[in-house]
Amino acid sequence: MRHTLAGWAETATQANVLRILRDEGPLSRVQLADRLGVSRTTMATEVNRLIELGLAESAGPAASRGGRRSTLVDFSSDLRFVGIDIGATSISVAITDGRLAVLGERQSVSMDVRLGPEHVLGTAIELARKMLAERKIDRPAGVGVGVPGPVDFHSGTPVSPPIMPGWHGYPVRDAVARELGCPVLLDNDVNVMALGEQHSGVAKTAGDFLFVKVGTGIGCGIVVNGELYRGVDGCAGDIGHIRVEEFGPTCACGNTGCLEAYFGGAALARDATSAAQSGASPALAAMLETKGELTAADVALAVDQGDAHAVQMVRDGGQRLGWVLASLVSFFNPGLIVIGGRVAQLGHPLLAEIRGVVYRRSLPLATGNLPVVLSEMEGDAGVVGAAALISEAVFASHKGVS
Amino acid sequence: MRHTLAGWAETATQANVLRILRDEGPLSRVQLADRLGVSRTTMATEVNRLIELGLAESAGPAASRGGRRSTLVDFSSDLRFVGIDIGATSISVAITDGRLAVLGERQSVSMDVRLGPEHVLGTAIELARKMLAERKIDRPAGVGVGVPGPVDFHSGTPVSPPIMPGWHGYPVRDAVARELGCPVLLDNDVNVMALGEQHSGVAKTAGDFLFVKVGTGIGCGIVVNGELYRGVDGCAGDIGHIRVEEFGPTCACGNTGCLEAYFGGAALARDATSAAQSGASPALAAMLETKGELTAADVALAVDQGDAHAVQMVRDGGQRLGWVLASLVSFFNPGLIVIGGRVAQLGHPLLAEIRGVVYRRSLPLATGNLPVVLSEMEGDAGVVGAAALISEAVFASHKGVS
Repeated sequence: MRHTLAGWAETATQANVLRILRDEGPLSRVQLADRLGVSRTTMATEVNRLIELGLAESAGPAASRGGRRSTLVDFSSDLRFVGIDIGATSISVAITDGRLAVLGERQSVSMDVRLGPEHVLGTAIELARKMLAERKIDRPAGVGVGVPGPVDFHSGTPVSPPIMPGWHGYPVRDAVARELGCPVLLDNDVNVMALGEQHSGVAKTAGDFLFVKVGTGIGCGIVVNGELYRGVDGCAGDIGHIRVEEFGPTCACGNTGCLEAYFGGAALARDATSAAQSGASPALAAMLETKGELTAADVALAVDQGDAHAVQMVRDGGQRLGWVLASLVSFFNPGLIVIGGRVAQLGHPLLAEIRGVVYRRSLPLATGNLPVVLSEMEGDAGVVGAAALISEAVFASHKGVS
Repeated sequence: MRHTLAGWAETATQANVLRILRDEGPLSRVQLADRLGVSRTTMATEVNRLIELGLAESAGPAASRGGRRSTLVDFSSDLRFVGIDIGATSISVAITDGRLAVLGERQSVSMDVRLGPEHVLGTAIELARKMLAERKIDRPAGVGVGVPGPVDFHSGTPVSPPIMPGWHGYPVRDAVARELGCPVLLDNDVNVMALGEQHSGVAKTAGDFLFVKVGTGIGCGIVVNGELYRGVDGCAGDIGHIRVEEFGPTCACGNTGCLEAYFGGAALARDATSAAQSGASPALAAMLETKGELTAADVALAVDQGDAHAVQMVRDGGQRLGWVLASLVSFFNPGLIVIGGRVAQLGHPLLAEIRGVVYRRSLPLATGNLPVVLSEMEGDAGVVGAAALISEAVFASHKGVS
């Protein structure tokens, strides 16, 4: 069954007013009328209706420009969204206000996504309920959920997600909506993080950009004209399985030489372990002896300690990621590339390598004004993006939501 | 100076009516009102105005559905567009009706684009004038022009086009508009061919597709939601310089291992010549002896003769093109890929190799419903696409054209 969103705004104008108030802060009725190109009379009616509906409220007098003093309109201060970011090994939840600012801090718990949807979603919902109760919120305006795998956006279910056994076809969206009693939308984690960067991160002013997540998997969120582009089957951005060498290591997907088989979390852990065992990296060898096993995060620690082999691992990985990104720049000519996910911890050595390859291998016209930057959201991109996903839908007019 | 299009339709509704009549043929006022969701009274007024403007005309009675017999409306039969397709070595021109059907046949002359803009455009304009005069057309409704290099779409000028010396910054759009006295738009040949496939070719029903041209250069037209995507600097689709091997032949761009350095027209001619000289290909050796030099077209002839080495050349090239297309499928998840340009002559052996690689290397979800096909327009894609480019703009309302 298709879950239809409530969509509170009654008209396209009301929805546009809410979106402008969310993105720009309090404005007067006159400013809103000018921005949307509607008459002042129409705007006054629409704003009064939004106030009646409890979606907007008065927010004090506007700065005087002579003549009659006008009143600012703002978003209702009662609006709350919930962003749930389900990763391979953790769940993060944040409550935001209507403007997508995180109230307090996001909270995270460790949780293996392979435990299956009922267990994982149960934990996520319990955490969300606790956080809502602490803030005395009866019912949020909506919940956005991101998961680390392909999603059928229209049915709100994961589709054959490789690292999420038991989740295929599970009605995640509808199950969460039933439990929390509000509109819910589900998307994959990379798309959700791209939305987070667009609303609150370095991509705030970019209309066409790529968000590249390098974590356990490698994926890409694509924003065209300010909107997420999902592709005809909803699986655009699956760049982890782009071939970088014909005869490389075998990937979990069955092919050889995929980017992810060189530079995903599992590949980095594998290479770190063998560098520790062979003695090529003294820093990693010491960590392996202490901890018993190594992860991608340990490579970042070894880089911080100046371990030459670890630095070379990052350079090799950055070069391969750079080859793939250079292809995408030639093809797509984006205005910005944001690199996020846990690999962003690798910091400047990684970024320098990626930039070197992209600027060398792509057309000068395409790279002349192309920033390649690291995410600055430190883990908030997923939860803020999930809240942004549902806020867009809740603010859509009835006409815009099918 | 920015050249402003005339844009004949006065309102967005009038423009939409013209586009629907172009794409679907004659309709009644009632059908048009229903399609555009406006009242029948409004539609009657708008259609009458289009007839007054000479843009539409009555086209006989509609099939009776009981009640009063209504009259079909059609596009004015006087509307004519000109499509000019400037290639590396030839110019093609076609006159189309308002529905973008080619009147008679397109006409072509051999012409080296390196002779420079004044000479090449002079020849193109002369040919267009002759064809218009033969059809007693005083003034076309608009002219579209495609050139084999990057274009700044907003200024209507080529930008550092590698194979078009002397064309950088030349005001192609404004020069043609001055000579032919009508609105003109300029774009690169690949974007224009993609529009041709969308209007009259295999991509007619596809909303999101890629058109890949393999000729002297290799490029890609990208259509998203039915619209050309040009990228933030207008150079999206530059796939000829995507890396397929790190240590491959040096490309004209200065990098090594670019797709174009393996499979562009010059690369195929180079490999054909060395296969002829080394004796690896008896068919190519015989052609070299007769003709003195070889081109990419000779490889197609050798394949037709069953020459094993030529077939292997096509397979190697198809595999490399396949790697690049597989990356784009993973990234972009298109609904259709159309292969065109002179390499389409290589036919089934090429297509089989490309399909094999794409279907093997991309996510099953992305390739399950993905046709990879050859263009069936036999050289008309460029001229029809150029006519489509200008028709879209001419049919845009004043509001839509800046």
